[in-house]
Amino acid sequence: MTNFDRADSLHSTTSSDGAPTWQTSAWFNSEPSTLNDFRGRVVVMHAFQMLCPGCVSHGLPLMHAIRQHFPRDQVVCIGLHSVFEHHTAMTNVALEAFLHEYRIDYPVAVDQAGNDGDPRPLTMRAYHLRGTPSLLIFDRAGRLAAHEFGAPSQLAVGATIAGLLSEADLRNAADQPMSTDGASTNPPTDGCSAAGCAIPG
Amino acid sequence: MTNFDRADSLHSTTSSDGAPTWQTSAWFNSEPSTLNDFRGRVVVMHAFQMLCPGCVSHGLPLMHAIRQHFPRDQVVCIGLHSVFEHHTAMTNVALEAFLHEYRIDYPVAVDQAGNDGDPRPLTMRAYHLRGTPSLLIFDRAGRLAAHEFGAPSQLAVGATIAGLLSEADLRNAADQPMSTDGASTNPPTDGCSAAGCAIPG
Amino acid sequence: MTNFDRADSLHSTTSSDGAPTWQTSAWFNSEPSTLNDFRGRVVVMHAFQMLCPGCVSHGLPLMHAIRQHFPRDQVVCIGLHSVFEHHTAMTNVALEAFLHEYRIDYPVAVDQAGNDGDPRPLTMRAYHLRGTPSLLIFDRAGRLAAHEFGAPSQLAVGATIAGLLSEADLRNAADQPMSTDGASTNPPTDGCSAAGCAIPG
Amino acid sequence: MTNFDRADSLHSTTSSDGAPTWQTSAWFNSEPSTLNDFRGRVVVMHAFQMLCPGCVSHGLPLMHAIRQHFPRDQVVCIGLHSVFEHHTAMTNVALEAFLHEYRIDYPVAVDQAGNDGDPRPLTMRAYHLRGTPSLLIFDRAGRLAAHEFGAPSQLAVGATIAGLLSEADLRNAADQPMSTDGASTNPPTDGCSAAGCAIPG
Repeated sequence: MTNFDRADSLHSTTSSDGAPTWQTSAWFNSEPSTLNDFRGRVVVMHAFQMLCPGCVSHGLPLMHAIRQHFPRDQVVCIGLHSVFEHHTAMTNVALEAFLHEYRIDYPVAVDQAGNDGDPRPLTMRAYHLRGTPSLLIFDRAGRLAAHEFGAPSQLAVGATIAGLLSEADLRNAADQPMSTDGASTNPPTDGCSAAGCAIPG
Repeated sequence: MTNFDRADSLHSTTSSDGAPTWQTSAWFNSEPSTLNDFRGRVVVMHAFQMLCPGCVSHGLPLMHAIRQHFPRDQVVCIGLHSVFEHHTAMTNVALEAFLHEYRIDYPVAVDQAGNDGDPRPLTMRAYHLRGTPSLLIFDRAGRLAAHEFGAPSQLAVGATIAGLLSEADLRNAADQPMSTDGASTNPPTDGCSAAGCAIPG
Repeated sequence: MTNFDRADSLHSTTSSDGAPTWQTSAWFNSEPSTLNDFRGRVVVMHAFQMLCPGCVSHGLPLMHAIRQHFPRDQVVCIGLHSVFEHHTAMTNVALEAFLHEYRIDYPVAVDQAGNDGDPRPLTMRAYHLRGTPSLLIFDRAGRLAAHEFGAPSQLAVGATIAGLLSEADLRNAADQPMSTDGASTNPPTDGCSAAGCAIPG
Repeated sequence: MTNFDRADSLHSTTSSDGAPTWQTSAWFNSEPSTLNDFRGRVVVMHAFQMLCPGCVSHGLPLMHAIRQHFPRDQVVCIGLHSVFEHHTAMTNVALEAFLHEYRIDYPVAVDQAGNDGDPRPLTMRAYHLRGTPSLLIFDRAGRLAAHEFGAPSQLAVGATIAGLLSEADLRNAADQPMSTDGASTNPPTDGCSAAGCAIPG
């Protein structure tokens, strides 16, 4: 059983409001950014490696669902390419092709490699991440509110993010179209389909 | 695209606080209950038919995930068997076997049939449900806060429920073990598995 | 690990060519039939219960895939409703509604109940089935060629059926359109989709 | 709708028995091999790109299922890395890491790049492949027996391969343990599980 723990005591190096500074060497789909740039919004960061199977099968669909459901002026999605193995394979050139093929259009930062022989990049160390995929959720004030290594359920992640938004924010979110698993999950207008049974007439 | 709309103006027959009274003819896994009995808790009601394919493939796993994630003293799950077709097949005897085979152990009410020739049972009519599965979410005060026909994403449902809990509730929820898709989604302790890649050592 | 065993020595009561006679009390989507009626064709029989979760989630999609792939003049699909529990729930009236809701249009026979207190119906006993779903595959001569309890992989079932068809049959089958998991599995005509990457131009 | 066509008239450059020669620049998990080396066995070749989403989600699990089901002295699985885009990202160094992370231990060849400005590698051109994933199935005599672009159903692929094996081969294959979707698909020994319902006692 995994836990989606609150982790307010996690930090080592800290920015003004407690969360360690993101140490990055490149950004895709965005200008270089800091946590402070997103003050006032909830930030969901997906620490991944492009060749990590669980990142591709669990992490990317989760980030896609978050992007579909929450208003983008309230919830920001960011990828963090935290390479701790196969460094010669997972280069920035390779990452750029990966982002293109998987149609990832939100900001993706590259976690900065150290020069001390430790294969783990610097932000990964500062946040004491255990591996990839890891999900880091920051509240509106830039504090680390939750983190998870592995594949949390989408229901739990939705609940955690919503808990960081105000009631007014959620009312707006509820007016957004909701992501589904695709056309087959839309309810029918008559009879039964894979998604449901409609009252006739 | 489906919407998970707020629907405060939906009601017809109303109880003291606005939501129509549940009109039921039988209960499984519980004494007969009313919405008032759950005052102070969020109530998630799954209106379903046992022979509705989408209820089985989407609705039941959704209810299971809600049960796994949220503390049961904060969020109550209830099934409502709202039969509007094949009435001679979906009897209470058949429902009881269905609940046993699908291992459903939360309260399930039977929506009361009318005697006016309308195939739709009474609660289904009072809430203007379009078919099954339909999800009804009531806030702590017993007001209908959200409803949905079809197969909403688990992320959206998790967010909606969390939005109805106070911050204190959510802090408790975050301490609960989180449901995952099963053993294969637990992160590895070394190397890569289907769920993730762990930092060695 | 399950095995998809050849089972030529399985039989108890036998028809002229070895396989036990089907003992049935009703048929849906077909006139009453015997194994002999299908001589010359491969017969795939799905012994199921309408309230068995694995039958719904694994068995029905498997039968659907068989129907989509193989020519119907070569491979016959038949359901066998073998109720060994909850008899008062899984009646013929309930089964008829089930077949309608799940859009099953191939022949479905009802395995005949005994009158000796044994809850297992007669055909289930004659074939020594261990439960539902069970798959029984008969060759063109009406011999039981393979059987399986549980959820065999679709690849293995496809291979087993093909092994019972002649090379000429398979050549015809290969000219049939192939079932896929739905529209999302069709390859793209340009760029990458969930199903593949097309060479541009 | 996709078709899993027989394609005996497909070839351009041909080896002695009709199929174009594989033109490769590197091999992983194997010494360099030719189609002739596998004479007497059915050969299933998966032309893929490591950054093609459909290759990862459909092609790799299909190859895994083939490896699990068929005896390896009868059916040979080979990957062909046919890069036609993002050449600087999908290098041999990156491929080696990919094979490690996805635990691919069968032979994988690298399709040889041309030097004429055409982004398509040479074997891809010789077989007129439309993109990735493409599946190529060769019979025991080294003839191309079937090919497919996209995501064919596992049932269809199992049937096609079986059609190329003799009856004696299939009898052996039927004695092999069968791959399933994992532990949850094994049938229960008592009561109902996700995979099935067992007769008590």
